[in-house]
Amino acid sequence: MKIPEILMVETVHQPGSLAKVLQVIADAGLAIEHLSALRRDQGKTLWEITLEMDEEADRSLYERIGQLPIARFVGKSDRVFNRHRGGKIHTVASLPINSRQVLRDVYTPGVARVCLAIQKDPQAAYEFTALGSTVAIVTNGTAVLGLGNIGALAGLPVMEGKAALFADLVGLSGVPILINDTEPQRVVEIVTGIATSFGAIQLEDFAAPECFEIERQLRARLQKPVLHDDQHGTAVVTLAALINAGRHSGVDPRGSVVGQIGLGAAGTGIVRLLQAYGVRHVLGTDRNAGAVARLVASGGEGVTLEALMQRADIVIATTGVKGLIKPQWVRKGQVILALSNPDPEIEPLVAREQGAAFAADGKGINNVLAFPGLFKGALQARARSFSDAMLMAAADAIAGLAQGDELVPDPLDKAVHEKVTAAVRAAAELPGLA
Amino acid sequence: MKIPEILMVETVHQPGSLAKVLQVIADAGLAIEHLSALRRDQGKTLWEITLEMDEEADRSLYERIGQLPIARFVGKSDRVFNRHRGGKIHTVASLPINSRQVLRDVYTPGVARVCLAIQKDPQAAYEFTALGSTVAIVTNGTAVLGLGNIGALAGLPVMEGKAALFADLVGLSGVPILINDTEPQRVVEIVTGIATSFGAIQLEDFAAPECFEIERQLRARLQKPVLHDDQHGTAVVTLAALINAGRHSGVDPRGSVVGQIGLGAAGTGIVRLLQAYGVRHVLGTDRNAGAVARLVASGGEGVTLEALMQRADIVIATTGVKGLIKPQWVRKGQVILALSNPDPEIEPLVAREQGAAFAADGKGINNVLAFPGLFKGALQARARSFSDAMLMAAADAIAGLAQGDELVPDPLDKAVHEKVTAAVRAAAELPGLA
Repeated sequence: MKIPEILMVETVHQPGSLAKVLQVIADAGLAIEHLSALRRDQGKTLWEITLEMDEEADRSLYERIGQLPIARFVGKSDRVFNRHRGGKIHTVASLPINSRQVLRDVYTPGVARVCLAIQKDPQAAYEFTALGSTVAIVTNGTAVLGLGNIGALAGLPVMEGKAALFADLVGLSGVPILINDTEPQRVVEIVTGIATSFGAIQLEDFAAPECFEIERQLRARLQKPVLHDDQHGTAVVTLAALINAGRHSGVDPRGSVVGQIGLGAAGTGIVRLLQAYGVRHVLGTDRNAGAVARLVASGGEGVTLEALMQRADIVIATTGVKGLIKPQWVRKGQVILALSNPDPEIEPLVAREQGAAFAADGKGINNVLAFPGLFKGALQARARSFSDAMLMAAADAIAGLAQGDELVPDPLDKAVHEKVTAAVRAAAELPGLA
Repeated sequence: MKIPEILMVETVHQPGSLAKVLQVIADAGLAIEHLSALRRDQGKTLWEITLEMDEEADRSLYERIGQLPIARFVGKSDRVFNRHRGGKIHTVASLPINSRQVLRDVYTPGVARVCLAIQKDPQAAYEFTALGSTVAIVTNGTAVLGLGNIGALAGLPVMEGKAALFADLVGLSGVPILINDTEPQRVVEIVTGIATSFGAIQLEDFAAPECFEIERQLRARLQKPVLHDDQHGTAVVTLAALINAGRHSGVDPRGSVVGQIGLGAAGTGIVRLLQAYGVRHVLGTDRNAGAVARLVASGGEGVTLEALMQRADIVIATTGVKGLIKPQWVRKGQVILALSNPDPEIEPLVAREQGAAFAADGKGINNVLAFPGLFKGALQARARSFSDAMLMAAADAIAGLAQGDELVPDPLDKAVHEKVTAAVRAAAELPGLA
């Protein structure tokens, strides 16, 4: 997996300096992800240049930059690490405890009365505690980002990131819960054992196929919203993108043959939601026979990659394999969403050159568009689970907020999350559902 | 158990009005815990009168107040409930996520680099996540305050209160964890299963005797600080009070016979810490034979209540039984700490009249003096467990900060918690300990 590396490079302030540095990077086969000037003084400029490199990539590039007469390789930036220092979230008291009277009210002896009220009516916990705004973010670290099974503790920065986004975007309190166990049944027992602590539970970065059984059992056992984000959060944002791709290209997903390349957590979640949305004809392909069997059990059809490319009107790829889709396979009029990050299964430009009616990569397709509003809406409605109607309402809301030729809107726009929240809540409160 | 009830009473603003209301309350056998004027207008005053009443107490008192010509019973105050509305804690992002660049640094793709750093060196989690400032506050609700087994969810307001105090007093993030299970082995498995998520673990309101086994196993299995607050937090504050009681009365606990009345979680924790502190002769009494057996196993002597009162130089009572110690049992020169709240085993004034050299009740003896600094100090030192040296250092620090004839200092004074933190950290870092 490629991960970002931020280089600090100082150049002499004269025409062509920066171009020379960038040419050295280009010669190494690397594209610039981000570039900004940090400082300018005494005829010199300090640049921050972000690349995405494999862990094993050749770092002699740094030396070659330093050997340029107009440049100095200062070092790698600590910016990303500095932004993680001490953690990305912390807890605050909602009411400052600044007098004995406040202490007596919020702690002993006053708190006893609130405890008794909750003992009498457990629903009162949603009124007089933070239960209704608290979401466990649970992982066992078996499929963190594209890094694989790096363990629960190494997954903590991701869980804190989700919690920071919950806090910043919709004011929910996310609680990272790291489970040091990979056996599904024990994971289920542990989560069930602490589920009382939270209003809802987000499962995160659990590997397939264990993730399916873990989610299924927890949904069955707990009377509160449980969602495996890698499946359903991804599916919601993908459906939103697909709705807009359909608008742009005139291809309606419901009447089309949809081909899903990659049937892991994301692919399986996408297929499920597309079927619920009304897509009747789903093809799928995966190296893993069990994954294909799951697709078939849900009413899809397992095919080869080439057959899928030949037959599908809409192609969605979530494999993590750069360049998997050969340009010559693209058929005229196809819609192609090649969603793997940072490198798509086919570059959108190439797909369009081959006649695709519409093509996009996964750059803007970010789960953060979905999960904050999904959980906030479910909690506001006090839903006992996530229904397909809630997921589709979120996708519709996200799709409707994209502007111009965007597939999806800006994930940092809080108005987006408010509208997703409202849509999910309304769907949860529809009689007969949720 | 008595819990506070706040009455709102309006009186005509004239001499004797308030006295008449208070007389009606006195006639009902109730003492005033707190009284304040909320509003004064048009010749009337609205009073907030706090009493402590049993759940089953006769509420016809309200009617009798209303029947006074100079008073009107307005109702019960919602102040305590209002202060709990929506919960007492929430999570915030430590860095506002206000740009795509910040999002890319703290979430994908930047976060991957931090994950890999932690995978390589788990200790890096203390630097780049909130692990080192996060404390689980774990309960199964079997012994909440004096309310008994009210269940884990009904205990949540207490856990949130602790978390709010952690946040406000020492800047730690407390995470309430509610376990819906009373079987000790399963509790241990569940806590062990999620322990990776936290820098330290506070056990709270677990009933005796299960609390002892749960704590023992968790301390043995986890390489991070675990503390059952009802045992050891209470013991630290009691030892602090006893050190000062010794100063005031000239009775040194180390050379004295100490009698502990009540051998539940608190009493057992107190005995343990006193023994570590150097008290060689401990007597104890409890209705429960198992509790006395525990005392004997730890080198104490089980005796009857009357024998204890005859033989002990220092008497500590933590039974929850009002008036348990008969005045005639008090011996001249005894030091008596009757710590049950709200009603002590003997009123300090009565004990002193009977010749006690020193007597106090539990009004100021609050765990909140100890637990924030205990955990902050242990986390700062990255201690792998709480040692007796750390508990005694906390007690010494607390005792040393009391002013004048106080037994213990003001729990809302942040300087107190800073000093307890520093003392605990120093004790944890002593070579050969912790």
